This record gives sequence, structure tokens and C-alpha cells, in this order.
Amino acid sequence: MTTAPLLLVVEDEALLHLALEDELADAGYATMVLSNGAAAIRELKADASRFRALVTDIRLGTGPNGWEVAHVGRELCPTLPVLYMSGDSAGEWAANGVPSSVMLSKPFAMAQLVVAVSQLITQSDTSSLVS
Amino acid sequence: MTTAPLLLVVEDEALLHLALEDELADAGYATMVLSNGAAAIRELKADASRFRALVTDIRLGTGPNGWEVAHVGRELCPTLPVLYMSGDSAGEWAANGVPSSVMLSKPFAMAQLVVAVSQLITQSDTSSLVS
Amino acid sequence: MTTAPLLLVVEDEALLHLALEDELADAGYATMVLSNGAAAIRELKADASRFRALVTDIRLGTGPNGWEVAHVGRELCPTLPVLYMSGDSAGEWAANGVPSSVMLSKPFAMAQLVVAVSQLITQSDTSSLVS
Amino acid sequence: MTTAPLLLVVEDEALLHLALEDELADAGYATMVLSNGAAAIRELKADASRFRALVTDIRLGTGPNGWEVAHVGRELCPTLPVLYMSGDSAGEWAANGVPSSVMLSKPFAMAQLVVAVSQLITQSDTSSLVS
Amino acid sequence: MTTAPLLLVVEDEALLHLALEDELADAGYATMVLSNGAAAIRELKADASRFRALVTDIRLGTGPNGWEVAHVGRELCPTLPVLYMSGDSAGEWAANGVPSSVMLSKPFAMAQLVVAVSQLITQSDTSSLVS
Amino acid sequence: MTTAPLLLVVEDEALLHLALEDELADAGYATMVLSNGAAAIRELKADASRFRALVTDIRLGTGPNGWEVAHVGRELCPTLPVLYMSGDSAGEWAANGVPSSVMLSKPFAMAQLVVAVSQLITQSDTSSLVS
Repeated sequence: MTTAPLLLVVEDEALLHLALEDELADAGYATMVLSNGAAAIRELKADASRFRALVTDIRLGTGPNGWEVAHVGRELCPTLPVLYMSGDSAGEWAANGVPSSVMLSKPFAMAQLVVAVSQLITQSDTSSLVS
Repeated sequence: MTTAPLLLVVEDEALLHLALEDELADAGYATMVLSNGAAAIRELKADASRFRALVTDIRLGTGPNGWEVAHVGRELCPTLPVLYMSGDSAGEWAANGVPSSVMLSKPFAMAQLVVAVSQLITQSDTSSLVS
Repeated sequence: MTTAPLLLVVEDEALLHLALEDELADAGYATMVLSNGAAAIRELKADASRFRALVTDIRLGTGPNGWEVAHVGRELCPTLPVLYMSGDSAGEWAANGVPSSVMLSKPFAMAQLVVAVSQLITQSDTSSLVS
Repeated sequence: MTTAPLLLVVEDEALLHLALEDELADAGYATMVLSNGAAAIRELKADASRFRALVTDIRLGTGPNGWEVAHVGRELCPTLPVLYMSGDSAGEWAANGVPSSVMLSKPFAMAQLVVAVSQLITQSDTSSLVS
Repeated sequence: MTTAPLLLVVEDEALLHLALEDELADAGYATMVLSNGAAAIRELKADASRFRALVTDIRLGTGPNGWEVAHVGRELCPTLPVLYMSGDSAGEWAANGVPSSVMLSKPFAMAQLVVAVSQLITQSDTSSLVS
Repeated sequence: MTTAPLLLVVEDEALLHLALEDELADAGYATMVLSNGAAAIRELKADASRFRALVTDIRLGTGPNGWEVAHVGRELCPTLPVLYMSGDSAGEWAANGVPSSVMLSKPFAMAQLVVAVSQLITQSDTSSLVS
């Protein structure tokens, strides 16, 4: 409440930007939506602590992919909740994902995204209070 | 995103069909809503893999009940997420439910249905990536 | 479905009452919203079993705080799902919270509240069926 | 401590009886080891509440199999922790197992059995205290 | 490995001291076993961070009981894993226990104690790495 | 039972080999204990499916470290349970670990290792049955 928690959303398909922003705004989140991995890493390096979670596609055109963005995010902020979205790269999650992350396999329902990101943030906050 | 995940919903109370469809559509799901167990089993046998989850009432008038529908669904597709809804039959879940299923005891809030089905689908997808 | 599950919401900031009520009503919950701990404890003592969950702020002005309200709720009804909301008191949860409760650290998104309360209720109902 | 919790163990391979008994005794459990499903159901019907958990093989020669034994156990005592052990029948667990049960796929290490049964009992006890 | 993790064990029944020490030593833990709550609180206040977990009975004769010992432990060290053991006081855990604690209801098997304390420590360590 | 499940254990401190082997043998596991990452990767590439879990230290002298060994293991076998052991590298787990892995921070008790590896194997087996 009061201030909307800020999510970093990385998705190279520009047609999806509005749908993601709208859905997450309805759920009470503010979003910074970026189209490529280099921009995402730049924003993480500028100040990772302002983001309550990272939501990232895997394939991001040229430059770093979603695995690399999440890796950098976790190096800067080990407690960053991470949610991957992917179609054909979901199978690589077991080897390339970070611990305590979630992979949403496309196609998925918007409610899956909202529920998963909400749970990850609450769990991360809760764990930090007892550990 | 892109294509809405399809849920098989079995509920013999026709007055609830529209409310269930609307709520699940708002959450981003497509639904096939059926009124009895025989029809549900027929659709599962035709192609169980098109359904991302089964949402079923327990008492379904004449014919197979919800326990039987879920049992058939899991025989055809061991990974099918299963969510039961019931009032007076909830107490039988410990003996008759399938593993990793959820029982929603009536009355419940629509958000409980949306959150539970979204979690079950994400968990099932995620587990399949590491096992 | 049919009857909306009733939540006891305790929040001393009156400006938030409407937002909490609206959001929880959209999710399918009925709410009794109170402004202080004494009133909350009175309602719990009158009949704790009518509430499906307790959602409480920690600092509640004069009188009992949120830790005390939850403690009384659990003494009357050991199965009561408990969700705390707080800003500066979140750090005391490890020592003062009850088991199986959730702490939402402010600021949080409304979706975090809806998802957490829905999960707690479903888990509590489910556990009661196998234990 | 004081009194050893009693486990009902059902295994038709008599050569394994001693190993199971020894290992569970070392872990602090008392065991009633039976060779077939009919005997197990008879003991459950006599007094299911004296058993803190059921550990059962699936294939049990003639008479009821492990799925049926667990089903009866849960009808008599919905909170009974259930642990199945199997080789070739593990794949049927998704359709035939009861909720909150565990399936140990043979071959397994004795530590898997001890850890799983200990966890199931502690979880069941814990859940009963808040639900 | 190398240095045994130290557990603070509080149990007023002196006859159980040796059994608890032996069992936990076999599992690889060092123990400081105390007979009353005042001594336990004194040791926690001297340096709570040297203990990897607190294992405490509820009824401890005169002086502070197990609920109070755990409360002090968590105030000093919010990440302290807490495991309660009790017979007749288990029912009060829902109101008096701390979050993320475990209640072992007597009688229990020694393996339940070892498995629960091992899990709590590993979970606490793991959570601290991502939150 | 019958055949002991085989664990791949990678630890560059030779003095610990015997302790790890003994403890895991007592728990019912067979072990292949190796001293460096190159040997571990060679054995994984030869046949990853024979191992029921990977237990690896992070620092392994010259050659690949534990993060790399686990990465290769998961590429070859996405369902491989992974357990890391480390002292000073535990803090890098959030960025470098694989999903659903466990990090044991040294010093730890042998029971933590046995409980964690047993749980990971049972969970992995169980998940594979419903997903």
C-alpha cells in the first residue's frame, strides 16, 4: 500500500509491453519495462535495491539473455526474487536458472504471473525476517 | 500469454457456470465447462493433454462423481493438476483425493480458486523441468 | 461461492479502510473492518469461528496491538489464519508472530494481500482435512 | 521419547521384514510388520488410532494391495501419515495414491525411509495443532 | 563437518539429558543441555549467536517456560531455529509458538528430533543466502 | 532397498573422504568419491543417469569448481538432485546455484547431509511421478 512496489520487467516482444504493464498495475505493482538485456543490466547496476522483483524473458534478441540478467541481479542483490518467462527455453531452467526462482512456461495465464510474483516477493520478505 | 491455457471445469449446478467462466476468463484462462462426470471423462479420453488443469465438483448428479473424474484424468495424464470444490464431501478428500491436489471447501472466495489453480499449474510446469 | 468468506481486518489508518474493503470484495471476501485492537478482541470473543482469517496491522494506536489481537484469536481458534501488515514492526515478527502466519512488509501490492490471504485459508482448510 | 511411536508396516517380501524392523527401531520407532493387505486392514479396523503412520508396499500377493490398505486407513483416520514403497507400481501413484502421501521408488536408501516417515509424522502432528 | 554445530537443549527432566545428548552427538551435533529456563536465557544473553538451534521443552519447573525462552532467543537472534518438545502443552503452540518453529508432540521418536533440527538449520542457512 | 542408490561426491579435501563415505554408507548409500571437478565431469558425461544425486564442494583446487560440475550435471540430467557444501563460497549460491538445490554451509552436522540428500532424492522421485 502507499507506494507501489517496483518490478523490473524485461521482454523483447514490444507488443506484450502494454499487456504486462496493465496487468501488473491492476495488481498494484509499478513496472519498469525494458526491451533488452543490456538496458536491464544497466538499471540493475545503477541501483538493484529499488526493484522488488525481476521478471524476465529468456531470449532477448542481441546482447545478454534472461539467464545472464538474473545472474547479474543476484550478484548485486542475493535476495532479488526472479521470475523467468519462456516458451522454448524453459527446458534449460534446471541448468541455467538461479535458486528459488520460478519459470513460467508460455503460454501462461496472466493470473499465473501475478500470483507467482506476489508469492515470491512475500516469501523473500518473510525469509529475510527469520534468517 | 498469447493462447489462454484451457481448464476443464465440471460443475453440476448450472447457475454457477457463468460465474466460474467469467472469473477464470478474467484471470486469463479459457474454460470448457461441463455439467456431469460422463461428459468430462469423454473429453479427457478424447485428449487429456489439451487441459492444463481439472477443476471439479464432487457431487455431480447421476454418473461418475468428481473423485472418479480426477482418477481417470490422472491415469491418462499423471501430471494433470487437480482442484476439487465441495461442501459436504470435503471430509472424504483424505481418502479419495489424488496426490498433490487441492480441495476448496465451500463456501470459498473466487480468489481462492484463481490463486490455487494458478499455483498448481505453475508448480506442475516447474516440477516437470527438474524431474 | 454462494456466501462470501468473512475476514476480520484491523487497521488504525481509516484512510486505508475503503481500499482494503474494495480490494478484498473484488476477490470475493466479505470484511469486517475495525480500527483498534480492543474492538477486534471483542468481536473475536463474541464468536471467533465466523472469521475465515484475521488481517491485522501491528501498531493500532492505544490499546492492544496486532501481536496481541492475533494471540487472542489463536487462543480462541487455533486454526485461524493470521496475516500481519506492517512497516516498521516487521522486524519483530520472528519473536512476536504466531506459527504459520504471514507478514506483509509495507509497502506491498494489493495482489500480495489477496494471494497471501487466499493461500492461508486454502492451506488451513486443506490441513484440517488430513490432520 | 518414553514410548516409541508405533508404525504399521506392510511388506509381502518376508526377507525384508528384519531389515525394516531393525532400521526403524534404531530410529526410535516400534513396528507391527505384516505380510498381507487383509491382515493390515484387520488391524486398522481394530484400532487405527494406535498407529502413528502406515508404511506399505503396493504389491502384496493375494488380497488387497497397498492402495486399498491406505484407502481404508484414511477412511478410518483421515490424519494417518501414509508412505508407499514400490518398484514397478510407482507410476500409478499419481492416480491411486492418497493426498499428502509419499512414494519411495525402489531401490531406495534406508535413510530415505526414516527421513520421510519422520517428516510425515511431525508434519501431521504440527498441522493438527493449527487446523 | 570439522566443528560440530552447537545446540542449546533445555529439558527439566534430568533423566532425559543423556539420551538427548547421545542421540544428537551421533547425528554430529554438540550440545549444551540445561535444566531450567533462567539458565537458558542467561546463556542466550551471553552470546546467542554461538547456538545453531534451540531445542526446548515447554514446562520447565519454576522460572521461565519454553515459550519464554524461545521468545528471548528470537529477540536476540531473529534467525534462531526453534524446536519445541511437549506433551500436554502442544495444543498451545498455535497461540504461543514463534514463526517457522516446529512442535514435537511427545511421545516422539529420536529420528523425528534429528530430522527436524537438521532441516530447520539447513532451511535457516539456505534462506539467509537468498534473503 | 536391495541395491544402494549411488551418489557422486566431489570433495578436494582427501581427509574428509572416509568420513563422508562412512556416514553415507551407514545411511544406505553407495558413493563414488572424487577429488576434482574434471574427474566428476568425466564421470557425469560417461553416464549421468547412474547417479541418484550429486554432492559437491565448491572450491575444488585446479579445474572446474562445484558450480560448473552441477551445471554440467543438470545439462545432462535435468532431474539430478544437487547438494552443495561450502564455507566461504556459500554466499555465491544465490547467483551461481541451480534451481531446487540445497547449500550446506560449513561447519554442518553429518545428519544435515544425510537428511538433505534423502529429501532431495525422494522429492525428485515424487515430482517425476506427477509431472
